[in-house]
Amino acid sequence: MNCEVRTYSQLTMHNSLFFFQRSLEIDKSCFMQAIHLQNGRLSYQADYPQPDPGPGEALINVRLAGICATDLEIVKGYAGFSGVLGHEFVGEVTAVHDTDDANWMGKRVAGSINLGCGSCPVCLAAGPEHCPERTVLGIINKDGAFADYLTLPVANLHAVPDEAADETAVFTEPLAAALKIREQVKIRPNQPIAVVGPGRLGLLVGQVLALAGTAVTMLGRRRESLALPAQLGLAAGLVDEFPDNAFDFVVEATGNEAGFAQSLRLVRPQGTLILKSTFQGQATLDLTKLVVAEINVVGSRCGPFAPALRLLADGAVAVRPFIEAEYPLSDGAAALAHAARPGVRKVLLRP
Amino acid sequence: MNCEVRTYSQLTMHNSLFFFQRSLEIDKSCFMQAIHLQNGRLSYQADYPQPDPGPGEALINVRLAGICATDLEIVKGYAGFSGVLGHEFVGEVTAVHDTDDANWMGKRVAGSINLGCGSCPVCLAAGPEHCPERTVLGIINKDGAFADYLTLPVANLHAVPDEAADETAVFTEPLAAALKIREQVKIRPNQPIAVVGPGRLGLLVGQVLALAGTAVTMLGRRRESLALPAQLGLAAGLVDEFPDNAFDFVVEATGNEAGFAQSLRLVRPQGTLILKSTFQGQATLDLTKLVVAEINVVGSRCGPFAPALRLLADGAVAVRPFIEAEYPLSDGAAALAHAARPGVRKVLLRP
Repeated sequence: MNCEVRTYSQLTMHNSLFFFQRSLEIDKSCFMQAIHLQNGRLSYQADYPQPDPGPGEALINVRLAGICATDLEIVKGYAGFSGVLGHEFVGEVTAVHDTDDANWMGKRVAGSINLGCGSCPVCLAAGPEHCPERTVLGIINKDGAFADYLTLPVANLHAVPDEAADETAVFTEPLAAALKIREQVKIRPNQPIAVVGPGRLGLLVGQVLALAGTAVTMLGRRRESLALPAQLGLAAGLVDEFPDNAFDFVVEATGNEAGFAQSLRLVRPQGTLILKSTFQGQATLDLTKLVVAEINVVGSRCGPFAPALRLLADGAVAVRPFIEAEYPLSDGAAALAHAARPGVRKVLLRP
Repeated sequence: MNCEVRTYSQLTMHNSLFFFQRSLEIDKSCFMQAIHLQNGRLSYQADYPQPDPGPGEALINVRLAGICATDLEIVKGYAGFSGVLGHEFVGEVTAVHDTDDANWMGKRVAGSINLGCGSCPVCLAAGPEHCPERTVLGIINKDGAFADYLTLPVANLHAVPDEAADETAVFTEPLAAALKIREQVKIRPNQPIAVVGPGRLGLLVGQVLALAGTAVTMLGRRRESLALPAQLGLAAGLVDEFPDNAFDFVVEATGNEAGFAQSLRLVRPQGTLILKSTFQGQATLDLTKLVVAEINVVGSRCGPFAPALRLLADGAVAVRPFIEAEYPLSDGAAALAHAARPGVRKVLLRP
């Protein structure tokens, strides 16, 4: 880090007007590359202000970042976000605000993305990911990972074991999200599970659930989508070819109305339907079965990083086959366009 | 019972053509009153064929029946039902098919309404209420309780304690449905609960949940709807006046889109939303919160009769204040019209 804290701590990142008034005063090395979204317009910026770690925070040099379906939704307007996109990353700590945190210096890290106030009843009970005042890396009021640098509280950091290469560790956040299901529901290993949507997140979910010996079937709408599940050793089939009520558990990993309707159709009476993908906007649904068949629907979001890193270090979950392409940060717009094509696997960004 | 079994066992109840061919052969006393629905047309019939108890079944003389919101939906077309309406009742066993069941003769009974095949994996695991081949009293392929007589398997019967008058025992089925919530979810007694919809079912739910010391708030759209909750000792308020995320648990007891939207708004992150009323048809919903706030939605239907009867016998749940009116069976159409008016409490039918 070449900027002095004294200098760039005067910047207000969320007030670009203020920044530009000050820009002549600061060192050129305080600029960085970033993929920035403002009023729905995506841009690559070579001279975005480098963020400033606040109390309890670390400055992290991003080594590799992943594009997630949520990023694509954000570009379309979800969450009304303006700022630097991106929340899946692996990086290296290059500065800390507090001398007590000096042990983090030089560490390779993944980082959980929710920053709660830390003191409200919601933070204390449900955790920072539900704090009404929370910021979320690259999603709500906090610049994200599609940049040379980001900041996060050291409390959010997890050291990446040497066994997990950057190309593996960059999947920590979505793998943690897949693991969240195990924190929410009890699944007996002989209960058949379907995952509707054999995409990036669905395949992490399928692999995680299969680890316990569960029979997992990945279901897709197109035959081409079944090749990768098969390559990963998971059973796969066309969703239309399975009868009603065929599965005790169904994980909805498409985030669209049709996927929800299929998932509800496939889950047996008194079964469980996990909603693993965020739904954007209104959906028209037939809720009759939900009540008559006493279905349990569980919304599922961010999960635990430590077990995700253990699985990645052990090689227990395959992630390398998910990598579709890697782009330099300067080609961020092309990378996002690539990631948005149907059936595409994980697209990575390297600063 | 004045008909001989030999005679009326030749009748096919669901084949009225066959019945009329045979009608000259049978005793006039085998006819009975019934409120009948056919192709959406409701009629009072004074000469409907009295049902015939099959193996394992009892013939029950209905003493009092209750009109439920589901009956009103069925009249509008829900479940595509044709036959005798009604599933809430108290009656007296007047005949049994099997001599082994003679101990039921003369007993005052309530009866659970689902008849499964008893041998499929669904019956064995989830119970008869989810059997794909099930019939349901007054709802699916089985004549119901708005008649002089009905039949049910003795396995479905529960003796009504002397302490529970007919006007109390007729609430066994909806009270059992309210109790089902306790079979599905764990509720810590200090978690605040809202029940959206202070109607007949909602008030049973509210009373049942309050029994464990839980603070229950009944929420309605109109100020007039809050009088009965107050009379029953339950806190009550206007649903619009409560902030987002105000309750750990919310029970949706309206069965309409607006009620669902309010319920989802009121439940806190990682909270539980119980759907206690059947939704009819499609609903347009915003599912974003469901995933982002990791809400648990639980469909809830039929419940356990034995604890419902214990509560009614003990007087632990007030039901008499719910009685709006009582009609003779011959005024069934007027009774159903009365029950369909907004804000109306329980309307009873006495054969």
